[in-house]
Amino acid sequence: MIKVDKTQLQIHLSERYRDIKKPELKAVMMIQDELLSSLRDYLRGIGFIEILAPIIGPATDPGIRGAKQVSFDYYGTQFKIMSSMILYKQMAINSMEKVFALSPNIRLEPDETINTGRHLSEFRQLDLEVAEATYNDVMKIGEDMVTFCIKRIKTNCSEDLEILGRKLKTPKTPFKKIKHIDAVKYLQDKGYNVKQGEEIPWDAEGYLSKSHEDFFWMIDYPKTARGFYDKEDEDNPGILKDFDLCYPEGFGEAISGAEREFKYEKVRQRILNGGESEEHYKWYLDMLKEGTTPSAGFGIGVERFTRYICGLEHIWEAVPFPKVPGVVSP
Amino acid sequence: MIKVDKTQLQIHLSERYRDIKKPELKAVMMIQDELLSSLRDYLRGIGFIEILAPIIGPATDPGIRGAKQVSFDYYGTQFKIMSSMILYKQMAINSMEKVFALSPNIRLEPDETINTGRHLSEFRQLDLEVAEATYNDVMKIGEDMVTFCIKRIKTNCSEDLEILGRKLKTPKTPFKKIKHIDAVKYLQDKGYNVKQGEEIPWDAEGYLSKSHEDFFWMIDYPKTARGFYDKEDEDNPGILKDFDLCYPEGFGEAISGAEREFKYEKVRQRILNGGESEEHYKWYLDMLKEGTTPSAGFGIGVERFTRYICGLEHIWEAVPFPKVPGVVSP
Repeated sequence: MIKVDKTQLQIHLSERYRDIKKPELKAVMMIQDELLSSLRDYLRGIGFIEILAPIIGPATDPGIRGAKQVSFDYYGTQFKIMSSMILYKQMAINSMEKVFALSPNIRLEPDETINTGRHLSEFRQLDLEVAEATYNDVMKIGEDMVTFCIKRIKTNCSEDLEILGRKLKTPKTPFKKIKHIDAVKYLQDKGYNVKQGEEIPWDAEGYLSKSHEDFFWMIDYPKTARGFYDKEDEDNPGILKDFDLCYPEGFGEAISGAEREFKYEKVRQRILNGGESEEHYKWYLDMLKEGTTPSAGFGIGVERFTRYICGLEHIWEAVPFPKVPGVVSP
Repeated sequence: MIKVDKTQLQIHLSERYRDIKKPELKAVMMIQDELLSSLRDYLRGIGFIEILAPIIGPATDPGIRGAKQVSFDYYGTQFKIMSSMILYKQMAINSMEKVFALSPNIRLEPDETINTGRHLSEFRQLDLEVAEATYNDVMKIGEDMVTFCIKRIKTNCSEDLEILGRKLKTPKTPFKKIKHIDAVKYLQDKGYNVKQGEEIPWDAEGYLSKSHEDFFWMIDYPKTARGFYDKEDEDNPGILKDFDLCYPEGFGEAISGAEREFKYEKVRQRILNGGESEEHYKWYLDMLKEGTTPSAGFGIGVERFTRYICGLEHIWEAVPFPKVPGVVSP
């Protein structure tokens, strides 16, 4: 964790029109342009269709680890800005086998996340979903996609990487897979306050990421740590068929995804067990009741990927108009 | 104008998970994917850099013809969801010569726009800006870009166009240019209630679009009809260096853009004359005060372009998860 002076940062970011003229920020933006293009070229190349992500809606992703959603009045009904488009991806794969979108997301993270170096309240996920896929299928896509992008950026943006002083390594595939249960044990042995059945806190995840020299998967999260939409492993009750991809060198989480639960009654029960109301997820439950296509997918944060590629300490250097939790800026 | 039953439409759109399985909507989504890809390929091919559009911020575009912006509390300050990223584009061209972004926009349009067939409360603009450019320069880009996309879709999506029964014509360039003053005179002669110095109402614009068999530009809008950011023609006081592109066949507005006013004192005066507060646009005015790069640019609505290409009566058929003014749906 770093220690950021909020007032200083607020002054700094309110003058973004100065920073934006600097060669370092220009280099980041050139690399980000190549990254966006690489992501799309890779996905379209293997048959994905790009769809337009929702911006607002009556319900959004509840599984956002303590962040707040933005609610507002939409013609007399309470609407939210998307915290992720996960529910909508499951609708789209009823039409097409492989879909992706550049999804705009808002999560009002708690003020203290200013010190993690990797939280923004406004960010974009490259979100994808594949019909009839297993979680292993989409992990393979994630691994190949990340490698494709890094290779292309090393080739096409060598001068920009040099401006940033970044020595970017080409990842070695296949990536190592670590089960959540084993990661927790390992971190407990190292003295971290990590509990089985819970999400791994940011500092501990950062340590795990720092102790790796290459990308690695974390798999098989406990049911109690994730949203209602991730599928339980029938051979392994209490464990989900889900995964995170972690960057090496302490950059933390890259990808989060899973095989989806698509059975109406199971999802309904998990929504109720999570203390939420069925009415809130009406269209989604109606869809599951009628029958929806099984799928798997993931999201990758574009700013975090940019941060890793560019080797930046702070995520607000990885986006032209950054919104940092608790900081008011353009 | 069409006459839409709001309750019926609400029921229909709440069951989007059924519609999405239909071959017609799939064809639209396949064409939209090709459109997004064509837009980006064209722009990157002539040296544009893609940037990440802001989603929210302290100030957004006020020139939105009677629609309401969405406001919410952002860590103790009032923020808005972007109604357009226009102010931010002017910041970005201080770093790079040519920028574009797929910009998410929310405008709570009045309920009656449900009957225009071309208003959504949630939509995306392909927004671009060019440093040191004239309005004629960016009109040329718009013309070539639109033609490039249509040609490519005719080639790559012929089967999807056939499913929709759409005979899409390749536009003939250069497009005709009509001055706002002449368009108003013409419409007055046809009996429309149109006034000099004001925006042309939707029904009259629809008539003008219907009376054309090919794309046409409307140029030189009066200062009283547009936002504070469009540049006044110094040789022609009261007239702006701005433009709209209109689709033929009654599909109405495609593109809206201009050369930008970049002088601090002029913008400040126009903000005050428009009855708005300087404080509201603080970062933007600070930027202009320090000195910013002159530029020109435009935005093109992705859903409206999709609607034209596909020949759809209603714009809500041109997007997977439509938000129609006054209608609550996923």
